[in-house]
Amino acid sequence: MDIRALQSFLADAFPQVAEDFIVEDLSEDGMRVRLHVGDRHLRPGGTVSGPSIFALADVGVYLMILSRLGPVALAVTTNCSIDFMRKPAAGVDLTAEVRLLKLGRVLAVGDVLIYSDGAEAPVARASVTYSIPPR
Amino acid sequence: MDIRALQSFLADAFPQVAEDFIVEDLSEDGMRVRLHVGDRHLRPGGTVSGPSIFALADVGVYLMILSRLGPVALAVTTNCSIDFMRKPAAGVDLTAEVRLLKLGRVLAVGDVLIYSDGAEAPVARASVTYSIPPR
Amino acid sequence: MDIRALQSFLADAFPQVAEDFIVEDLSEDGMRVRLHVGDRHLRPGGTVSGPSIFALADVGVYLMILSRLGPVALAVTTNCSIDFMRKPAAGVDLTAEVRLLKLGRVLAVGDVLIYSDGAEAPVARASVTYSIPPR
Amino acid sequence: MDIRALQSFLADAFPQVAEDFIVEDLSEDGMRVRLHVGDRHLRPGGTVSGPSIFALADVGVYLMILSRLGPVALAVTTNCSIDFMRKPAAGVDLTAEVRLLKLGRVLAVGDVLIYSDGAEAPVARASVTYSIPPR
Repeated sequence: MDIRALQSFLADAFPQVAEDFIVEDLSEDGMRVRLHVGDRHLRPGGTVSGPSIFALADVGVYLMILSRLGPVALAVTTNCSIDFMRKPAAGVDLTAEVRLLKLGRVLAVGDVLIYSDGAEAPVARASVTYSIPPR
Repeated sequence: MDIRALQSFLADAFPQVAEDFIVEDLSEDGMRVRLHVGDRHLRPGGTVSGPSIFALADVGVYLMILSRLGPVALAVTTNCSIDFMRKPAAGVDLTAEVRLLKLGRVLAVGDVLIYSDGAEAPVARASVTYSIPPR
Repeated sequence: MDIRALQSFLADAFPQVAEDFIVEDLSEDGMRVRLHVGDRHLRPGGTVSGPSIFALADVGVYLMILSRLGPVALAVTTNCSIDFMRKPAAGVDLTAEVRLLKLGRVLAVGDVLIYSDGAEAPVARASVTYSIPPR
Repeated sequence: MDIRALQSFLADAFPQVAEDFIVEDLSEDGMRVRLHVGDRHLRPGGTVSGPSIFALADVGVYLMILSRLGPVALAVTTNCSIDFMRKPAAGVDLTAEVRLLKLGRVLAVGDVLIYSDGAEAPVARASVTYSIPPR
């Protein structure tokens, strides 16, 4: 699936959140996804909430898997480990750099570095495992 | 802080989400927190979203730390590892059983089992580390 | 498999390390495994090394799975998350309290609390996921 | 500390394991460390054991921190999350590519990709958090 197909799939399958996520770049090796930050993602002080950072990592790896396998809506997250390393900048989108480290028959593993848009040092690091349903 | 003080603190510090979380039980060893599931927590099919499960684990350990230390609003999550083990039941609240495993000078570690209300087998397991600011 | 069968399996399948691990208790819900600490597990100062703590958690969950499924030697660890919370006491065995949280068709998840023998506060907490091979 | 100083520190502080680890490359951004695989690292079938892979990730991030801070022997691992993704090749060394993602006042976070020497797809991925003692 290319960027357009991924965005269209997201809009159909997850209409509540599809507008939040924008796939900006997609290659064989990786993907960049933007979280369009709105009020519902913020905590007092204007910083992006932990659950929103989690959501970006989770969706990023999901879309990367779909880009390879096609629309397997039933892939489910089985594990996620996140390190929160720096406070996100206030009032700024987040971008996720996603790499797919393994795409096996039953499990896929991706890792993600998350940045406040334009910053050099990452806000968070996540690794996410998905279980792939049998065809 | 007792249950009433925790709920009041949550309402003041995190007004966007305070209504979602209800502390149901608090003892020296542990705490039970309910996620009052609403439409914004759901995915298609009526299942509770991953970010909502993450939020429950994260808030649960935070409140458990506050119950011991008092209102240290500035404690921040540094790591979370979650295993998603079963699909949450549709249209049912989640409850989190929280234990505090360590409350050190700079780090606190809690673990959490999350259940669909009334079910015996857990939906998810999480461990959460918080960094405690110097007094 | 009961305790005797587990120890015998371990001796056959993993002769290099089988002597290190002693299953002390086994029930439907959990298991206690002892790491018989020797010189090769120690770091300077007499504290048990991180890799030895990892090994205890990993073997503990493996044996718990075997106790339910029988001798599926080919189960493999896919993920482990550990929090190291306190320094192990010098010159003392470690004991692991293992619980099996999920035993699915393709994945099993266990969690483990590890103690210096006789201490009340845990040294470490681990969660371990195994992939179960198809029958 | 440069490569020579790191190896010398390792030999003094951790004589039991220092011979196992060889720093092959060190730059501002990262480090490559080799695990010289011997019989004690192997499982039946000739594959490198999980605890040995854990040890490589843990030591790799430790040495990367030392390269920046100097010989702070008392840094301790507080968290490690590992995904085991592929079976290591039999009879081959492992190499770890280490990146330091955060070097804070109290916590440092590194991530590690581990390869069977010469292979393109990683055997494992790990993230490791160290607590840095006050000066």
